[in-house]
Amino acid sequence: MGESIRGLKRTHHCGDLRKDNVGEEVTIMGWVQRRRDLGGLIFIDLRDRSGLVQVVFNPEDNQEVFTKAEKLRSEYVVAIEGQVQERPQKNPNLATGEIEVHAKYLRILDEAKTPPIYIQDDLDVNEDLRLKYRYLDLRRPVMQKNLILRHRVTMLVRKYLDRMGFLEIETPILTRSTPEGARDYLVPSRVHPGKFFALPQSPQIFKQILMASGLERYFQIARCFRDEDLRADRQPEFTQIDIEMSFVTQEDVMEMMEEMIIEVFSGVGLSVFHPFPRMTYDDAMNYYGSDKPDIRFDMKLVDISHLVKDVDFKVFANTVKNGGQVKGIRVEGCANFSRKEIDELTKYVAIYGAKGLAWIALKEDGIKSPIAKFFKEEELDAIIKEMGGKTGDLLLFVADSPQVVAASLGALRLKLGKELGLIPEDKFQFVWITDFPLVEYDEEEGRYVSLHHPFTHPVEEDIPLLETDPLKVRAQAYDLVLNGVELGGGSIRIHNSELQRKVFKMLSLTEEEINDKFGFLLEAFQYGTPPHGGIAFGLDRMVMLMAGCDTIRDVIAFPKTASATDLMTNAPSDVSKEQLDELHINLQK
Amino acid sequence: MGESIRGLKRTHHCGDLRKDNVGEEVTIMGWVQRRRDLGGLIFIDLRDRSGLVQVVFNPEDNQEVFTKAEKLRSEYVVAIEGQVQERPQKNPNLATGEIEVHAKYLRILDEAKTPPIYIQDDLDVNEDLRLKYRYLDLRRPVMQKNLILRHRVTMLVRKYLDRMGFLEIETPILTRSTPEGARDYLVPSRVHPGKFFALPQSPQIFKQILMASGLERYFQIARCFRDEDLRADRQPEFTQIDIEMSFVTQEDVMEMMEEMIIEVFSGVGLSVFHPFPRMTYDDAMNYYGSDKPDIRFDMKLVDISHLVKDVDFKVFANTVKNGGQVKGIRVEGCANFSRKEIDELTKYVAIYGAKGLAWIALKEDGIKSPIAKFFKEEELDAIIKEMGGKTGDLLLFVADSPQVVAASLGALRLKLGKELGLIPEDKFQFVWITDFPLVEYDEEEGRYVSLHHPFTHPVEEDIPLLETDPLKVRAQAYDLVLNGVELGGGSIRIHNSELQRKVFKMLSLTEEEINDKFGFLLEAFQYGTPPHGGIAFGLDRMVMLMAGCDTIRDVIAFPKTASATDLMTNAPSDVSKEQLDELHINLQK
Repeated sequence: MGESIRGLKRTHHCGDLRKDNVGEEVTIMGWVQRRRDLGGLIFIDLRDRSGLVQVVFNPEDNQEVFTKAEKLRSEYVVAIEGQVQERPQKNPNLATGEIEVHAKYLRILDEAKTPPIYIQDDLDVNEDLRLKYRYLDLRRPVMQKNLILRHRVTMLVRKYLDRMGFLEIETPILTRSTPEGARDYLVPSRVHPGKFFALPQSPQIFKQILMASGLERYFQIARCFRDEDLRADRQPEFTQIDIEMSFVTQEDVMEMMEEMIIEVFSGVGLSVFHPFPRMTYDDAMNYYGSDKPDIRFDMKLVDISHLVKDVDFKVFANTVKNGGQVKGIRVEGCANFSRKEIDELTKYVAIYGAKGLAWIALKEDGIKSPIAKFFKEEELDAIIKEMGGKTGDLLLFVADSPQVVAASLGALRLKLGKELGLIPEDKFQFVWITDFPLVEYDEEEGRYVSLHHPFTHPVEEDIPLLETDPLKVRAQAYDLVLNGVELGGGSIRIHNSELQRKVFKMLSLTEEEINDKFGFLLEAFQYGTPPHGGIAFGLDRMVMLMAGCDTIRDVIAFPKTASATDLMTNAPSDVSKEQLDELHINLQK
Repeated sequence: MGESIRGLKRTHHCGDLRKDNVGEEVTIMGWVQRRRDLGGLIFIDLRDRSGLVQVVFNPEDNQEVFTKAEKLRSEYVVAIEGQVQERPQKNPNLATGEIEVHAKYLRILDEAKTPPIYIQDDLDVNEDLRLKYRYLDLRRPVMQKNLILRHRVTMLVRKYLDRMGFLEIETPILTRSTPEGARDYLVPSRVHPGKFFALPQSPQIFKQILMASGLERYFQIARCFRDEDLRADRQPEFTQIDIEMSFVTQEDVMEMMEEMIIEVFSGVGLSVFHPFPRMTYDDAMNYYGSDKPDIRFDMKLVDISHLVKDVDFKVFANTVKNGGQVKGIRVEGCANFSRKEIDELTKYVAIYGAKGLAWIALKEDGIKSPIAKFFKEEELDAIIKEMGGKTGDLLLFVADSPQVVAASLGALRLKLGKELGLIPEDKFQFVWITDFPLVEYDEEEGRYVSLHHPFTHPVEEDIPLLETDPLKVRAQAYDLVLNGVELGGGSIRIHNSELQRKVFKMLSLTEEEINDKFGFLLEAFQYGTPPHGGIAFGLDRMVMLMAGCDTIRDVIAFPKTASATDLMTNAPSDVSKEQLDELHINLQK
């Protein structure tokens, strides 16, 4: 079914016209991308969602139409009737480059002021300007391509899940504070003075309730909200592919999801290596210093603690003796890094808390290293051997607590991988991370905190350890990592109210907090709840990686700035005293 | 891909087992619907999302399993291995009624307390109890059927729109106050003290911005929010199928949408009469007293004003002389309504402001009517003829202002249609309503108000009337009505900033309000915006009508009560002083 404007019926989209259409009378509608006057003719590139086509106005064909065309400026919206003709000079860079449309009729549908930003893919302007004029920014083909990709991805996700018997079920946006641990957005209630709704950080509890309801397979492409400081690439609202299944083990969920990811990626023309490799949390931390390892390149972290625990070099030996680690990475062929370059790397690891960066350069003309003198030759040989060092390599070491070693060397590995061009940019390398610990100890809060969330089911045989050695308890949890980005995380959930209560208590929730926040969930668990588990994927991140963008803002139609402002609409904004009174609140002075 | 629980792999769903499966060893999982002990055997009905199947435990097959089965109670969650066998006594009322499963293995996955409500379709309990234990309520097959239907409807909508080149694009939930005229839900900003986001009443402005962005065809199954008093069947948050297209006329949108509705309804097995009839707003008001007429039955309103303007019966004559109307409906074969019945009807129309209900009963033995004596015989004959009255009919009349006549007789028509069984309940009768006035005059507010919204484009040739006679201006607007319920409404939008400004001013918005609230939209319109239009359908209502439910709460997984409370989670709830401080607000005393 087509489009029409008072007597004109659109017959084609601009970008679809080809040599096959030569001789046809067409009606096209769109935006003037640019106008050139040349040899007494007017040429315009007409743009619609499908692409560009060249239109020619010739005064000898029709003087009246030509005169009208003289008014055309960039971004005018027009409808044009004309004939498709072969182009004297082909443009091989344009899909429609073999033809042009000779205009016989022109209607100006809307005029346009000169836009403050150019409508072109390679745009070098302040992002704030793009966000303020988002409607112009979204005219750029690259942005339209991103939104089209996002649409296709969600269609493919839905198609797959529907076929697998999942039901998309909407859960409330006006709800109760959820326990993801981030700050909630709150909505004052007018009907219930002093009370507030919270916007959901995720539909976690509702999807578990749906399993208690016997719906068995649920999904939702769900909006979620976190009132966090928007460091890094976060948005106050984001979208999650949220999934839950009953009567399943971890294996069932992972298998179902791996199939989905493969189908979705290949559905948009991206090839994916599969089956996805799997890695335990411990291995990920040991070899990559991260629970979201980028395994597109090697350069693993190597533990040399056992080799240095008794050496004379006290920095290494004492670190190991005090429960720390010494680990290194081998930077292939970089023995000739300058002192200045190494100083830069040292500054870089300092960001992650490392107090220093030891190095050994295996030069053609021998070992160069400020620390070599502290080692016996056989000690040095053993270290180089353990590191797999070859002539031409640079070996870099950090000695510190396991956390600092992992964070700093993990980050250094990524930095070097990127700068040395070791990362194949067009490769989509997934990896499942499994066997997470259930909890870690938060020194600052002085209590155990969940690695995933408090609903995660412990590994069955570790349940007795909950009371004796919580840090040893493994979780039935799994993350899917793509190219070093955490794409999704899930777990088998607790479905027994006593076990859930035990875990809440281990996390130092008081009886009152448990009953107030989770009473209804614990009660639901008492009426027959099946074993269940699920996962949630970050849609924004997924599409960002697929599109090859650097920020999720480029795959969200109307994102907010780092200070959570919408520069186009100027939200948030002032409200009236009457509105506040209705909501029973005052502004603080 | 299947489900499994520690060594057990689910092979079938309960409701899928048939005579063909006899002899097969199956593993099924689900909830105990009920247990009966009979003749030394234990029978249970096992329920999952697909339906019920009978399972038999025989102590002679396996004493251990039988002993375990003695523990089973309603709503226990179990996994059962067994063999499908033909049933000695078939149950023709059950899809699986020809077979039963002879249990060889039983695992209790979860126990259950006695549920406070029965898990059965015909449930006669207080709705509040159902909402508090929503997870039990949602176990009822009828509720699951509703959610499955809703899922299928949204899948069909998306499939159709995707095929037609529409892109689903997410618009913000944290946004600026929208101008639908209802009260906004507000969200205090933490980063910007004293400022607030609003939850969208619809994505109206964003979808128009997307048209200005050249996305051409947009849709979204969008959550919308209105902080209204929840009289009737409303929810604080509801879901809308939201659609917008560029380069279109009203006809294009209506054609595209009619195809969609037909495809979606037939996709879930509901047949629809089409092409949909069309009716002007004036005709709808004249003949049905409503802009959402239920045309599944006749009983149209008949105007007899011209026949009674000079009669002696002053109630009629004076009403017409003072600008009012006299209209009637013919209630076929109801001449023998008792005085008491007619009194009831009189009380009913009084709700809608009618001061009385005149009647003429065309009995076998002559006319009976308290007003007949005021008319000459030929006057009475003319009225009866105009009404199409036949022996046995009851004619009912209201004399009042056009508004009161329409409201009261329209409502009376519906009441009688329902009570007399004139409405074919299983028929889906659509009708497009067109040619709405752009504005009406709101006596209370003392200004013109939009019938649809302020972005509606006037009919081109009526634009000059905007300044001279606004009430005469017709809108390029259209509603889709199903069985007397407004299912959707849309319009061609204004895409010119000057025309938009003119309309805002006609609606008595000040220059400041216009610039503050809509400045960015008016600015967007200056950079080349295509003609565009769209529509929005109420998904909740649509599914409600499809499912044959009386309330949208039965097609929403987690609805709120009339006082906007979630009885399951107890939202809204208290928040801490710290949270309020972070948001820079205080509670009013």
